[in-house]
Amino acid sequence: MQAVEQAHEIMRKVKDLNAVSAVLGWDQETYMPSGGIEARAEHIATIDTLSHEVLTGDTARRTADNLRSGLDTLTGDDKEIMTLFLRDHDRAVKLPDSLVRETSRAQSLAQEGWKKAKSEKNFAIFAPHLERLIGLKIQAAELYGYTENRYDALMDLFEPGMKVSIIKPVFERLRQGTVELLDKVLPLRDSINDEILHKSYEREKQLEFGKSIVNKLGFDFERGRVDLSAHPFCTNFAPTDVRLTTRILENDIRSCLFGLIHEAGHGMYEQGVNMKYFRTFAAEGTSMGIHESQSLFWENVIARTEEFWQWALPQLKTVFPEQLGDTTPRDFYRAINVMRPSFIRIDSDETTYNLHIILRFEIEEAFINEKIRVNDIPELWNEKMRTSLGIVPRNDAEGCLQDVHWSFGGYGYFPSYTLGKLYAAMLWTQLQKEKPEVRNLIASGDFGPILEWLRSNIHQYGRTQMSEEIMQRVTGRGLTETDFLAYVGAKAQDVYNLA
Amino acid sequence: MQAVEQAHEIMRKVKDLNAVSAVLGWDQETYMPSGGIEARAEHIATIDTLSHEVLTGDTARRTADNLRSGLDTLTGDDKEIMTLFLRDHDRAVKLPDSLVRETSRAQSLAQEGWKKAKSEKNFAIFAPHLERLIGLKIQAAELYGYTENRYDALMDLFEPGMKVSIIKPVFERLRQGTVELLDKVLPLRDSINDEILHKSYEREKQLEFGKSIVNKLGFDFERGRVDLSAHPFCTNFAPTDVRLTTRILENDIRSCLFGLIHEAGHGMYEQGVNMKYFRTFAAEGTSMGIHESQSLFWENVIARTEEFWQWALPQLKTVFPEQLGDTTPRDFYRAINVMRPSFIRIDSDETTYNLHIILRFEIEEAFINEKIRVNDIPELWNEKMRTSLGIVPRNDAEGCLQDVHWSFGGYGYFPSYTLGKLYAAMLWTQLQKEKPEVRNLIASGDFGPILEWLRSNIHQYGRTQMSEEIMQRVTGRGLTETDFLAYVGAKAQDVYNLA
Repeated sequence: MQAVEQAHEIMRKVKDLNAVSAVLGWDQETYMPSGGIEARAEHIATIDTLSHEVLTGDTARRTADNLRSGLDTLTGDDKEIMTLFLRDHDRAVKLPDSLVRETSRAQSLAQEGWKKAKSEKNFAIFAPHLERLIGLKIQAAELYGYTENRYDALMDLFEPGMKVSIIKPVFERLRQGTVELLDKVLPLRDSINDEILHKSYEREKQLEFGKSIVNKLGFDFERGRVDLSAHPFCTNFAPTDVRLTTRILENDIRSCLFGLIHEAGHGMYEQGVNMKYFRTFAAEGTSMGIHESQSLFWENVIARTEEFWQWALPQLKTVFPEQLGDTTPRDFYRAINVMRPSFIRIDSDETTYNLHIILRFEIEEAFINEKIRVNDIPELWNEKMRTSLGIVPRNDAEGCLQDVHWSFGGYGYFPSYTLGKLYAAMLWTQLQKEKPEVRNLIASGDFGPILEWLRSNIHQYGRTQMSEEIMQRVTGRGLTETDFLAYVGAKAQDVYNLA
Repeated sequence: MQAVEQAHEIMRKVKDLNAVSAVLGWDQETYMPSGGIEARAEHIATIDTLSHEVLTGDTARRTADNLRSGLDTLTGDDKEIMTLFLRDHDRAVKLPDSLVRETSRAQSLAQEGWKKAKSEKNFAIFAPHLERLIGLKIQAAELYGYTENRYDALMDLFEPGMKVSIIKPVFERLRQGTVELLDKVLPLRDSINDEILHKSYEREKQLEFGKSIVNKLGFDFERGRVDLSAHPFCTNFAPTDVRLTTRILENDIRSCLFGLIHEAGHGMYEQGVNMKYFRTFAAEGTSMGIHESQSLFWENVIARTEEFWQWALPQLKTVFPEQLGDTTPRDFYRAINVMRPSFIRIDSDETTYNLHIILRFEIEEAFINEKIRVNDIPELWNEKMRTSLGIVPRNDAEGCLQDVHWSFGGYGYFPSYTLGKLYAAMLWTQLQKEKPEVRNLIASGDFGPILEWLRSNIHQYGRTQMSEEIMQRVTGRGLTETDFLAYVGAKAQDVYNLA
């Protein structure tokens, strides 16, 4: 079938252009001098526009038409990959080139605006950029179409098939369960001494330690690397070139290490995609929710166990002998699992974390549906922080400016983090069933069988299976908050010695 | 004239794509993990092919036809820029897309092959890559066309208008003059003690010092940065984003510093191009010869004067007080101007340097005209080293594998270095006439007026004036080796206290 080869030709170009755009984005966040921003915005816009043109041009339309009529005759990889080609093509043709170019340019400029606003702690600098981007994303949502809620059209880009009507009740039960748990735990929060985390830890040594840890977890440095950026992220240009970034706080040993383990979770997913999908639309993680399930699985489920620190603490002590002295694995485990309301999402504990997400979800859902205006955001943010976490940010930098996502127009992305937590807890339940020895593996630093389990069950498939299909196949169940609540409940019991 | 706007639209796309290709190349040489090479080769090939398609597609052909008929009605910037558009378009249509793509891919792979061959000191690893690339470049030369020598067609890409028949007699007189000078100097070469250059100099401090020096020369770090790579280079993605690289040898203080000053000379040229040319074909240095005149002007003419070290040595002493002790500016000046045959072009002195270039020029001219085979190169190289410099490399890494150029197919580039030296000496003669106080400026670290002179005479014009036109306008003369021979003659006299 000639259309299959034509579709491959189109996918190769599109994937190459998208990879190149990712290189430009990576450089912008890591090394680009400040003067380069205007030119970079043009370059990214040109590449993104070309990518869109290739995916939606006359050749692609003819190819899609030919494919559709013959799709049923295909089998195996061909069928899966061509189905993805049609899905992406059909979605892309809904957006005119002009909107794609305008959005790309607005994103680049908004990212610089966000950086400036954050460093000056001044939302007003970012507001016009945000307003512009939201307007463009509303246009996109209307063009994509939706049946229930405009926000669904955007969420679908990150978590195909997800809807506000599915998420809302799950999030509501999750909030209730979280609040009940916090009611028990918060009175005890000062019973754990976590000063050990806030000693002075030399930056360079933190970074080296973090890199050695993710290497041992299974992140392949022949096919990836680590750099620094204002906000940690993972990007990839191929399964053979995966870039992680982290940031380092001298007085918080968690920031660099857990940031890096988180991003390495994403990175190992991308490194694990079957190379037979290279330069096709199947060659990446299937959804942001599943992606986050991988990053959070390593960051929290694995690296915040007591067993992990039985293995890792002796190594950390050789790097920082003075700071860590006679700290025991259990001391360290308890310190990194303190539950405590905090301003910054990425520094928050895994239980209160979801309250940060629910707050963002509610604000995003409101501004995408034009229920609130951009200028209302800081006040609304602070009000929601007060009611859900009981604390109020002192300024916008530790409030509504803390995350990069809104500066690249990633509205609909945040729910993925909580979906990722729920999926990760479900996977953990299943992994313990299949490998009852898993805690021993962690305690001995033998992560190979765990990575292999994730590789064979999830990573290798790339985008050929969707979230729901994966979770059903691996765990036999659909999305639920119960595993997560049981998981954090058990951890709270252990960490706080609850009855 | 609608065609003018159409041409601008095409140029913007082409310039953006070329800039993006440069980003990919920069990353490949600086940070890319080794596993990324295959994917990177595809990405660069896709971008280069697209760039070629845009410049040669139906729209570009129609635009070019319309422009040609109305070119005489244009004036000023429009005329200059449209002339460049037509020049580049007309050349590009001579190459089929397939050849461009194949060449791009072969270049990426050859660069990795070269790295491996060099690190293993084994030409055989690189030979098949080189053979393939030479074959592709011969095809290109035949398609471009030439009247006298196939090599002219390739040299024209780097130095428009230059021919073997022009260069050969100039290079021959230059070789004679150089050999005569060396006959006087080489017997005295041990009269200068340059051990000071080879003490142990901490890498990180060398880099910081080099960066501070090029900053003071006028390289703008808001619009550029410095990284490390195996072979120093300068690339730019816009006048506002110029990247330099250098390499550091712990036991040779010249390598990092002079490499960086050299690349900063290129970088300041690019930073100085008038922004009104941004995203047009005028927005870059006009030729590699003029480019090298700028890098060599700063590296040699300025930074190897005694006056420069009257200013710079006290600063270097604060960084390396133990190593430099009571070294005087004159000691240092004499040490960095020792003339001595060496294996490595980029580490050689400015006088013997040209013998390295003439050797490469002769070998390239021979293999492009199929007078020799690729496998003959190592032996021929060593033989020419013996007859022209009197020394024979111990292995291919310090012989024919030392330079990156052949791995990216840059045949015809090397002569630019010597042209650059000749131009630089002509500019120096002229600058001294116009600013008799120039040596005092250097001694006081006041480089602003020198950079300003280069900016207003050369940089600002970008590609709107060609080499010959620039040299005639600024110096009133065409290409000559006499200024260079007088310049190195005078320096030898001073450095070696010749009669």
